[in-house]
Amino acid sequence: MGVTEPVLIAGQWQAARDVCGSFRAEDPSHGEPIGPAFPVCGGADIEAAVAAACEAAAALAAAAPERIAAFLDTYATLIDKDAETLVALAHAETALAAPTRLAGNELPRTSDQLRQAAKAARRFSWTQPVIDTTKGLRAHYAPLGKPVLVFGPNNFPFAFNAVSGSDFASAIVARNPVIAKAHPSHPATSKRLAELAHEALHACGLPLASVQLLYHFDNALGLQLAGDARLGAIAFTGSRSGGMALKAVADRAGVPIYAEMSSVNPVFLLPGALAERGAALAQEFFSSCTMGSGQFCTNPGIVIVPMTPAGDAFVAAAVEHFATAAPNVLFAGNVRDRLEQAIRALRDAGAELRAGGAPGDGPGHHYAPTLLSVDEAIFLAHADALQGEAFGPASLLVRASGVETMVAIAGCFEGNLTGTLYRAADGSDDDAWRQVAAVLRPRVGRLSCNKMPTGVAVSPAMNHGGPYPSTSHAGFTAVGMPAAIRRFAALHCYDGVPDDLLPVELRDRNPGAIPRLVDGQWTCANIMPSTGATP
Amino acid sequence: MGVTEPVLIAGQWQAARDVCGSFRAEDPSHGEPIGPAFPVCGGADIEAAVAAACEAAAALAAAAPERIAAFLDTYATLIDKDAETLVALAHAETALAAPTRLAGNELPRTSDQLRQAAKAARRFSWTQPVIDTTKGLRAHYAPLGKPVLVFGPNNFPFAFNAVSGSDFASAIVARNPVIAKAHPSHPATSKRLAELAHEALHACGLPLASVQLLYHFDNALGLQLAGDARLGAIAFTGSRSGGMALKAVADRAGVPIYAEMSSVNPVFLLPGALAERGAALAQEFFSSCTMGSGQFCTNPGIVIVPMTPAGDAFVAAAVEHFATAAPNVLFAGNVRDRLEQAIRALRDAGAELRAGGAPGDGPGHHYAPTLLSVDEAIFLAHADALQGEAFGPASLLVRASGVETMVAIAGCFEGNLTGTLYRAADGSDDDAWRQVAAVLRPRVGRLSCNKMPTGVAVSPAMNHGGPYPSTSHAGFTAVGMPAAIRRFAALHCYDGVPDDLLPVELRDRNPGAIPRLVDGQWTCANIMPSTGATP
Repeated sequence: MGVTEPVLIAGQWQAARDVCGSFRAEDPSHGEPIGPAFPVCGGADIEAAVAAACEAAAALAAAAPERIAAFLDTYATLIDKDAETLVALAHAETALAAPTRLAGNELPRTSDQLRQAAKAARRFSWTQPVIDTTKGLRAHYAPLGKPVLVFGPNNFPFAFNAVSGSDFASAIVARNPVIAKAHPSHPATSKRLAELAHEALHACGLPLASVQLLYHFDNALGLQLAGDARLGAIAFTGSRSGGMALKAVADRAGVPIYAEMSSVNPVFLLPGALAERGAALAQEFFSSCTMGSGQFCTNPGIVIVPMTPAGDAFVAAAVEHFATAAPNVLFAGNVRDRLEQAIRALRDAGAELRAGGAPGDGPGHHYAPTLLSVDEAIFLAHADALQGEAFGPASLLVRASGVETMVAIAGCFEGNLTGTLYRAADGSDDDAWRQVAAVLRPRVGRLSCNKMPTGVAVSPAMNHGGPYPSTSHAGFTAVGMPAAIRRFAALHCYDGVPDDLLPVELRDRNPGAIPRLVDGQWTCANIMPSTGATP
Repeated sequence: MGVTEPVLIAGQWQAARDVCGSFRAEDPSHGEPIGPAFPVCGGADIEAAVAAACEAAAALAAAAPERIAAFLDTYATLIDKDAETLVALAHAETALAAPTRLAGNELPRTSDQLRQAAKAARRFSWTQPVIDTTKGLRAHYAPLGKPVLVFGPNNFPFAFNAVSGSDFASAIVARNPVIAKAHPSHPATSKRLAELAHEALHACGLPLASVQLLYHFDNALGLQLAGDARLGAIAFTGSRSGGMALKAVADRAGVPIYAEMSSVNPVFLLPGALAERGAALAQEFFSSCTMGSGQFCTNPGIVIVPMTPAGDAFVAAAVEHFATAAPNVLFAGNVRDRLEQAIRALRDAGAELRAGGAPGDGPGHHYAPTLLSVDEAIFLAHADALQGEAFGPASLLVRASGVETMVAIAGCFEGNLTGTLYRAADGSDDDAWRQVAAVLRPRVGRLSCNKMPTGVAVSPAMNHGGPYPSTSHAGFTAVGMPAAIRRFAALHCYDGVPDDLLPVELRDRNPGAIPRLVDGQWTCANIMPSTGATP
C-alpha cells in the first residue's frame, strides 16, 4: 500500500509496523484527497504505544512540576511560532476560515490553554492539598501513574486535538503520558502538532514516550484499546454512538472514561426579551448556528420561541436568514450524511422544514443552513426523537404557548452541555426565568443568560460538561483548569508519613505558597513543625 | 407470611405493598433468629420509593443549606440520645462489642460524622465556588437533582449504615434524597436509625421523602433498580462480586456508582523496623487483624516480612498470637462460609496454613483467627490468586528476601484502599521506603507509615478510596468531607447570569464568608460590584 507517514511511538517517529490500510485527508471544499498517505495502524502499533506509555508513566509521575510547566510553555511557544504552517494545514484539511477562526481564534486559544496548564502545574492548583495536622493525615490529587488515551474530535483541529487540546494538556499537567488518537480528518495538522510536542519534550527532558500519536485504527481495535486495563483514563470528544461504544468497554475494564458526546443546547427566548429585541436575537441565533458551519458541540440546536407576535416575527426573521444564506462547507462526506439523516429523523418525528434541508450543488461537502419548527404539542409528544442532535448548521424552533409549556419542555430534555435563557433587561421575564431555570438547571452543565451557547471561554469557572448523556459524568469539565485536570488524577492520602517522605506540596514548609486547606482553613503559609503530627 | 415491620416510603412508615418474603435478624453469637420479621420488598415498593424520591429531589435541591445542616445536627443529637437502645440493637444483631466498639467508638463517630456534614453544609465547603469576574463565569458543585441509592454493608451498623453513615450524610449535604437499602443483617438497628432520621426531617421541615428505607430485596430487583436512569448516583460498600454486578448495570444506565468493593491492604515491614521492634509489631498486627473479628475493608490481609532473623521472630510471634486466640464471632453464616472459601483458595494457590483455619465449635458463626504464609517465589508466580480478599480475622504473610523482591511484590498488587510501610526510627529504612513506596503509591488510596491500616479517621484529609478494583473510581473517597460529598454533586456553571438569579454562594456579596476562588485567588471577601461582569 505504499509508503505512509510515520507515527510517533516510544519517542521515535517511525514507520507503522503493521499497516492495515492507508488514508489521505480531504479538502472539504472540493472533496478531493490532499497531502500524503497516513497509516491505519494495527494491533502491533497500538500495543507498542501502550507498552511505551506504561513504561514512561512512573518517570513522568515523578517529574518535577516545573519541568512539566516548561514543556507546556515551550510547546505553546512553538505552536505560536509555527502558526502560519499550522493554520495552512488545518485550513486545507477542515475548510475552517483561516484568518478569523484558525489564526485569529483557535490557535491562540490553544497556546493560551497550554500556558494556563503550565500555570496550573507550577501552582499545584489541581492537587488541592488538604492537611489535618491533628490526625497526621495529608491528601492531594496525584498522577494516575498510567497512560491516558485521548480521542480527538473532527471539529477543533487545534483546541481539542488529541495532541494539543484541553484533554491533552490536562492529562500532562497531572503527569500522565498521553496516547493521542488524532481525528483522521486532519492528520497532517495533528502530525505537525506532534512534531512540535516532540521537540518540546526533547528540550525539557521529559520521557519521550509521554506523547505518542496514532492517526487512525479500525473500530474493533479502538474498542479493544479502550478496554485495556493498563490505561488510567480515557478522554473522548465526538459522536454519541462512538462515545457510548467506548464507554461500554472502558466501564467493563474499570477505566474511567470522560466522554463528551452530544448536546442540543436548548435556548429559551423569554417573552420580554423577544418583544424587546427580537430582530437582533434572530441575527444572533443565525450567526451562532452557522458559525464554523454549525459544527460545535454547543450549537443552539433547539430554540424555544413563545407563540406571541414577537415570536412570530423572530421566526420569520430567522427563516429569512437561513433561507438566504449560502450552503456551508462541512468537514467530510460522512458529516454531511449524518446531518441529512438527523434532519430526516426530525422531519419524520413531526418537525416542519422552514429553510435549507438540502446539500449544496457541485463538489465538496456542502449543506444549506437548515431551520425546522414544531409546535409544543408535537414536541412534548415526541420529545425523545425531536431532541436528536443534528451536527451542523441546523436548528429546531419549538413554539410554546406560555411559561407553563416552557417549563414542561424544559423538563423533557436529557442531559445537555448548556442551556440558555434570554431575559428582558427590565426584569419582566425574571419570574419566568426562575420557573424555567429551576427545571433546566439540573439538566445542563452551563446555564447562560442572554448569550448563545457557542463560545466556550477557557476559564477556571467554565464548565464544558453536563449530565449524562451529554457527557459520561456530570462532575467534570473538559475545559477549564484545574477542574479539567482532576479527571486524570487519583486521590492520594498519607497517614503518619514523615515530612521528608511526603510529596513537596504536602510538606510542612510551603515555599511555593501553594494554597492548602490546613485544619479547615485555606492558607499559603508554612505549617509550624510544633503543630505537625508527623513524627 | 405474617405481619412484617413497616418500611419507610414517601415519608410514611407503611406496610410493604408487595412482600416477596420475610426475614429476621440473627444473633451471630448463637446463630438463632431474633427480633421481628422484616419484609423482602418487591418491585412495587421499590418503584414507590424511586417515584417519591424523584418527586422530592427538586424541593430538596432548593432547600436552604441551613435547613440541611439543622437536619443533620438534629439527627446526630437524636442518635446520641438514643445511644443505649441503638447499641443494644446493634450488639444483638452484629455481636460487635457493645462498650468498646459500638458505644465507645462507632456511635459517637457516626454522630460526629453527621455534625461534620452539617458544618460542610453551612460552610458550603463542598460547593467550591469558582468565579471569573472578567469573563462573567461562575461555577460550583451543586445537587444532582436526582435520588441517591445507598447500599449499606454488614460491618458498620452505624457509621456506614445506608441511613446514617458517610454515604448517607454526603448525599444529603449535596441535597439529594437518599433511598437507603440497609444491610439485611441488622434490620432493627437500621429501622431505629431511620425512625430518628424521620423525626429529624419532621422537626426541620425537609421533604419527608428525602430519606427512605428498604431492608431487603432480591438480587434481580436490586440490579434492576441500580440500572434505573432516574437515579443520580449509587453508593455501595460490600463484596467485590456484589459491587461489580451493580457497577455493570449502573454503568450501562449512565448512573455514576461509587462502589467500595475489596482490599487486602498490603503491609510492608521494612528490615530496620522489624529489627527495632519486631515483637511489638507482631502484637500490633494481631490486634489489627482480629479487631472487630477482622471484618474491616482495611484489614491487614497481606503482610510482607523480610527473610531475616527478626522476620523469623516476627512470624513466630504472630503465629503464637493467632494460634492461642479464641475463635472470633462473625456477622453471619455466609460471612463464615466465604471466609472459609477464601482461605481454601489461598491454600490451593500455595499458601501454607500457620494457625487457625477452622470454624469454632458449637452454635454461632465463629472462626479461628487464621494466619497463612507463603514464600516470595510462590507469591510472585500466583499473585492474582494469592491477593484474594479473605474477609474476617485472616492474613497472609509473604516472606521476601530483600528490598528488590519487596518492590516486585508491591508491583503485583491491584488497586487497594491502603498500603502500609513500617520504617525504623533511625531512618535506616528510608532508601527501601522510597523504592517500595514508588511502586505501591499508585496502587493504593492511603499510604500509611508505622500504623496498621484499620482505623479510618473521619477527616477532610482522609482518603477511604483507592484505585480500581478496590473502588470504582480512584478520584473519590467514601469518608472525609468535603471530598466524599462531591461524589453526589454536579458541576454547574453560570454564564452571564445576573447576580440576583445566581445561587447565594455565587453572588457578589458573600455574607457567609465562604472561601471562593475568585480570579485565581482564594478569598472570603465580597466581590465589588464594579468588577462584576454580570449585567
